[in-house]
Amino acid sequence: MDAKALYKIGYGLYVVTSRKGEKLNGQIANTVFQITSEPPTVAVSINKSNLTWEYIKESRVFAVSVLRQDTPLDFIGRFGFKSGRDIDKLEGINYKIDQTKAPIVTDNAVSYLEVEVTNEMDMGTHTIFAGRVVDAEVLTDEVCMTYDYYHQIKRGVTPKTAPSYVAEEKKAEASGSGKYQCTVCGWVYDPELGDPDGGIAPGTPFEEIPDDWVCPVCGAAKSKFEKI
Amino acid sequence: MDAKALYKIGYGLYVVTSRKGEKLNGQIANTVFQITSEPPTVAVSINKSNLTWEYIKESRVFAVSVLRQDTPLDFIGRFGFKSGRDIDKLEGINYKIDQTKAPIVTDNAVSYLEVEVTNEMDMGTHTIFAGRVVDAEVLTDEVCMTYDYYHQIKRGVTPKTAPSYVAEEKKAEASGSGKYQCTVCGWVYDPELGDPDGGIAPGTPFEEIPDDWVCPVCGAAKSKFEKI
Repeated sequence: MDAKALYKIGYGLYVVTSRKGEKLNGQIANTVFQITSEPPTVAVSINKSNLTWEYIKESRVFAVSVLRQDTPLDFIGRFGFKSGRDIDKLEGINYKIDQTKAPIVTDNAVSYLEVEVTNEMDMGTHTIFAGRVVDAEVLTDEVCMTYDYYHQIKRGVTPKTAPSYVAEEKKAEASGSGKYQCTVCGWVYDPELGDPDGGIAPGTPFEEIPDDWVCPVCGAAKSKFEKI
Repeated sequence: MDAKALYKIGYGLYVVTSRKGEKLNGQIANTVFQITSEPPTVAVSINKSNLTWEYIKESRVFAVSVLRQDTPLDFIGRFGFKSGRDIDKLEGINYKIDQTKAPIVTDNAVSYLEVEVTNEMDMGTHTIFAGRVVDAEVLTDEVCMTYDYYHQIKRGVTPKTAPSYVAEEKKAEASGSGKYQCTVCGWVYDPELGDPDGGIAPGTPFEEIPDDWVCPVCGAAKSKFEKI
């Protein structure tokens, strides 16, 4: 079996949020998909170790924001590589509360859906939550982020808790001279490409990056990087 | 609620096949997605009215071929707009039989997966079948078809049985002078664009198309088209 065959499956990139009483949380997901058109239903696969899983399990609601192609890496890192058990992920983020009371993240969103869970399926490490779309709106006409674009163009990485994580592949892709990898999230600094969004010009060797620079995905310090 | 918000969800395009005893069948699907990485599991949403649904329900296996971006419309039309109750969809198609005995379509495929169903969830008009990936291979490095590319660039259409079908939107997109729509599958002939794959140059009015021309998606006769 060649696990790379599964990489060919196409996805978008989403923030999936929920609540537990007054507490709110959200996470990045790529496996959101429509199940039926009449009535409109969607499903999402969520890792049982994630706080958002606990919230959906209890409140039976979730909201999905479809991310635009130009979503900054640090926004994805905030929702995808940090836990709501450690930080308030929605602090400083624009969101609104509507029908399901799950927070609808509007920053970097081209559209959103609100869902009431009707069915769930236990799949070992993950649960598929499926349900009725009770509200949905388009916010902008911008191009949506695809999972492929996130990896190929944005050089994004996949957390270990994602449905599509493959440890070996990430290492194989990453190896190369002058590159350094973040030990927290796995993102790779390539001196040829630099980190223009973080003020580091292409062609800058890792050693010449200022000490206060942080990982563009997860915000880890420069000292958390290791040569690969 | 704005149903167009659901169009922003990203998908690839796949042929999903199964068997029932010695009988083989397949269909187009866009909702294939990975659920867990350890062990590798995937899921697919299939309409209960489709023959492939009957076959998966009985044999508990299916194969998925991930389609390449350049897959011809008539190939998609064969699997997506015709029923295995009327024709042998696999006649003249290259496929192989391996572990699950579901036919693995290799024409236009960049990779394939074979799946043994472990769980299913009844979602009204559709069933989500989920299961263990027992084999998977990459066939080529070609770019994969996205559902967005199929609609925007290939001008493909969506059958009524698909999870993401929305009748109103299709009509709204289609209306315009000189355009004709296939009454069988919904594909729209736009004289500005012609049908180059079918030998009709851009700029050709519908009336000047030879009578033996057929719909590039479903193969319906020219007489099955109506002005819109």
